[in-house]
Amino acid sequence: MELSNASQMALQAKERTIASLFTNDDRAKSMSIKAASLFLDYSKQNINDDELATLFSWAKEQKLTENITRMFAGEKINNTENRAVLHTVLRAPNSVKQTILKTEADEVIETEKRVEQIVNNIRSGKSVSAAGKRFTDVLVIGIGGSFYGVKVALSALNPFCSPSLSVHVLANIDGGAVHEKLAKLSVDTTLVIVISKTFTTQETMLNAQAVKQWMRSNANNELIDFSELMQLQWYAVSTNITKATEFGLSATNVLPMWDWVGGRFSLWSAVGLPLALAIGNNEFSQLKNGAYEMDQHFLTSQFEQNMPVIMALVGLWNRNVLGHSSLAILPYDHGMRALPGYLQQTDMESNGKSVNKQGDHLSCATAPIVFGQEGTNSQHAFMQLMHQSNEIIPTDFIVALQGSSDLKEHHKVLVANCFAQSEALMKGKTLLQAQQELIEQNFDKEDAEQLAPHKVMKGNTPSNMLLLDKVTPYSFGALLALYEHKIAVQGFLWNINSFDQWGVELGKQLGQQILAVIDGGEDVSLSSSTTALISQFKSANFCK
Amino acid sequence: MELSNASQMALQAKERTIASLFTNDDRAKSMSIKAASLFLDYSKQNINDDELATLFSWAKEQKLTENITRMFAGEKINNTENRAVLHTVLRAPNSVKQTILKTEADEVIETEKRVEQIVNNIRSGKSVSAAGKRFTDVLVIGIGGSFYGVKVALSALNPFCSPSLSVHVLANIDGGAVHEKLAKLSVDTTLVIVISKTFTTQETMLNAQAVKQWMRSNANNELIDFSELMQLQWYAVSTNITKATEFGLSATNVLPMWDWVGGRFSLWSAVGLPLALAIGNNEFSQLKNGAYEMDQHFLTSQFEQNMPVIMALVGLWNRNVLGHSSLAILPYDHGMRALPGYLQQTDMESNGKSVNKQGDHLSCATAPIVFGQEGTNSQHAFMQLMHQSNEIIPTDFIVALQGSSDLKEHHKVLVANCFAQSEALMKGKTLLQAQQELIEQNFDKEDAEQLAPHKVMKGNTPSNMLLLDKVTPYSFGALLALYEHKIAVQGFLWNINSFDQWGVELGKQLGQQILAVIDGGEDVSLSSSTTALISQFKSANFCK
Repeated sequence: MELSNASQMALQAKERTIASLFTNDDRAKSMSIKAASLFLDYSKQNINDDELATLFSWAKEQKLTENITRMFAGEKINNTENRAVLHTVLRAPNSVKQTILKTEADEVIETEKRVEQIVNNIRSGKSVSAAGKRFTDVLVIGIGGSFYGVKVALSALNPFCSPSLSVHVLANIDGGAVHEKLAKLSVDTTLVIVISKTFTTQETMLNAQAVKQWMRSNANNELIDFSELMQLQWYAVSTNITKATEFGLSATNVLPMWDWVGGRFSLWSAVGLPLALAIGNNEFSQLKNGAYEMDQHFLTSQFEQNMPVIMALVGLWNRNVLGHSSLAILPYDHGMRALPGYLQQTDMESNGKSVNKQGDHLSCATAPIVFGQEGTNSQHAFMQLMHQSNEIIPTDFIVALQGSSDLKEHHKVLVANCFAQSEALMKGKTLLQAQQELIEQNFDKEDAEQLAPHKVMKGNTPSNMLLLDKVTPYSFGALLALYEHKIAVQGFLWNINSFDQWGVELGKQLGQQILAVIDGGEDVSLSSSTTALISQFKSANFCK
Repeated sequence: MELSNASQMALQAKERTIASLFTNDDRAKSMSIKAASLFLDYSKQNINDDELATLFSWAKEQKLTENITRMFAGEKINNTENRAVLHTVLRAPNSVKQTILKTEADEVIETEKRVEQIVNNIRSGKSVSAAGKRFTDVLVIGIGGSFYGVKVALSALNPFCSPSLSVHVLANIDGGAVHEKLAKLSVDTTLVIVISKTFTTQETMLNAQAVKQWMRSNANNELIDFSELMQLQWYAVSTNITKATEFGLSATNVLPMWDWVGGRFSLWSAVGLPLALAIGNNEFSQLKNGAYEMDQHFLTSQFEQNMPVIMALVGLWNRNVLGHSSLAILPYDHGMRALPGYLQQTDMESNGKSVNKQGDHLSCATAPIVFGQEGTNSQHAFMQLMHQSNEIIPTDFIVALQGSSDLKEHHKVLVANCFAQSEALMKGKTLLQAQQELIEQNFDKEDAEQLAPHKVMKGNTPSNMLLLDKVTPYSFGALLALYEHKIAVQGFLWNINSFDQWGVELGKQLGQQILAVIDGGEDVSLSSSTTALISQFKSANFCK
């Protein structure tokens, strides 16, 4: 990030308190913005109007608008894979799809209709299992981009999920996890959806094999033809129809993916089928509508009124100017507890890079370390460090004004805690205040002086406050799109390709090498540490 | 951390590769250690024998042995609260309890017996609900230290949990979460356990009230006297018998806590009751035995052979000498997926401080930012950043040699992935290697040169590999104790008090202030940002 004066601005910012920026009551108003039913208050960031103006100008110089436009227009901005980045088109009206995708639009629109049809058939009971029973459970098998989006949305939108059709997700390759899931399911009422672009993803294929084996062993084979069962009860989302049919699926049950939709942005495609089954077609449309509304806001608003751009610039300010290396995501909502994990993927996988699009090494920091938990749990855990260590951890608080239940007092207390933490992180507590409080609590002076330093809070920790009216498919769709675009903007400004993920390859290669050694091969290229670990694994498993 | 030569050693370490330290095959052997059924290989850390020797000497100079001894002996090392730190005594034989605790030992031993009795009575069906039914569900209400330990153990030890007695945990204050849990439960078969030292914890009390209300509304009040139901179906772990009985509990159903057991180290006390109900008394004893074995190892081994000390010193090396600010916890085990969250609490709440025990400000860094997810999921998400950004993130890999299921292929692939990531993080991939690979894949030279920089992995990321034979109560107990002691050692060496948590207080205070404003008060001390947020909350909830 080549911002002139960065180090001078950093010095200035570090010398002031955030609280001192609240010189008048206008700050909260001027530093907040509404878009697509979301409200963002960024007035508790350590930045003033002039600095923000500098960032806006700089972003313009960096041709940010052009980059955004190019993304939405379908130019191949994912240069290392020579692909467009068009997840946005999936939530746009058909007329936009036709303009952007041209002839390919037909397949996209048709796929959307097929998803709707499947959802209608399953939820209405028109499509039944091989045993003639209504489906009560959907088992989704997928990992990475075929997992996190579905998972976070299922959990956040739990109140909208049908009580008569439960969706379960199998991602990790862990036999214990497979057994745990299958123990709860019945072959006669379970629909399976395999999500894998290539239909070769190691974890997904092994899990699919195990589930297929379980179905075969537990189906009533005298009554049911197993290949017929596969045709009635198995769906896939994949580009590889050949592999899917070899596996036993009916070609008509394979929904397509497109290379211009990255895994971590794929919830809006047929990858969202499990979610649509859970919440129904209307609510799934609402999710896309919320995202589309945010897309439009992002595409058309000037930077000063553009929520994703503002969040991105404030994030760059924290990362590159002030030098903070992490970002805490704290949703005050039990349903959104999977959001930090989801954003770890979208942010760190997209922008965890160190070369620019041309392959030159970047000296500046890129994606922060994203972590978090739902509030108020986090208050009883790692927030201690946020208040009292030397480390400043910028934070996004996320909370809905209205709760999802009739327990009003619960929601009031939840929201009060959320607001209180943002205030506490900003204001902190000085040594004098701590001493004063202790004296008011009847400590004698000496004891108060001894204890007070342990009660000092550094304050000056910047945070965003993101409000949803209520967690609905619409507002949640807008929220996901907001973060997608924030991350894209940061990638544009760092001049990196946010849309590839070559970093996952080496582990795969070495995994194959290690499997070969476990199976009896030799490999002198592995370290003696890894070789010794493999030996231990082999003796534990094959020498008993 | 006042280590002489630290900056010179850092320079030296940063100039070499970790792989270059493997000059002979002895490194893997000399830099690995077994204790209490665990195996630690730390040979992939960026440290050599001499540097390690320097750390051991330095730790001795810092009186580490004396500090460890003082902790186990029950001296009041938690100086700001004037308390001993004796969770270790809870897993020690009764003779040790008597030696250390003197007269208080009787109550501790008796409590342990009461827990066993309750477990026997519930699991055998001797104790039944007010409706005369066997309990099928246990609902635990607690947060923070009364939550994370139970949660992580229930999940990790799932294969050991009774299928006929399910344990559910309610922590966060979220009405939606309350409804979600209660919808699955029946009053007639649910046992409730409230865990709160003071019996005043805001979240816990509101949740307990909601559950009580639900029970009252749903119990068959014509047949069942509600106060009798409370006596049969509600237990508490608390020091505040008065508050608990006021709430409606029978005093005989309140199990004590002690001020020398911190919340985040309390799983070994009666706080572990829900876990004991799930896995039974024998397995709960095994958990304590594993921890005790680790305690003994920690207390009696010289530093060079002391697993918690080695992990602590290597952690300090990464944090204070090499300057890495975070620590990834990557358990390759679906059951252990809650471990990163648990360790966020134990580590960041304990050592997220910036003053020493005497109250002087520390200039050195303390606890790292701890985060993680279960492998292999993390490989498809944030590990991209670990491989390709400029940020070096030290990592603990944790995996069991034997899986918990009969899906052998799954476990083999899981373990191979785990080992592969540690190797990949260490070795990385150079530009030359990346080019070579592309040319082997038939890219022409120009394309290969363009793409190769995007495929470079920095490598040189240090990691520990922790092996369990199998995830059992014994090995898992040892694992938890290992981290407890690692964290304690780091606290001793930073000279901070790892056992208080004053940082949570300010948020509580401000939360009360904000609640008062929501309820109609005024508070000019709040920022205009927070005041405006409160107004929005009020209009959304009370002005419709």
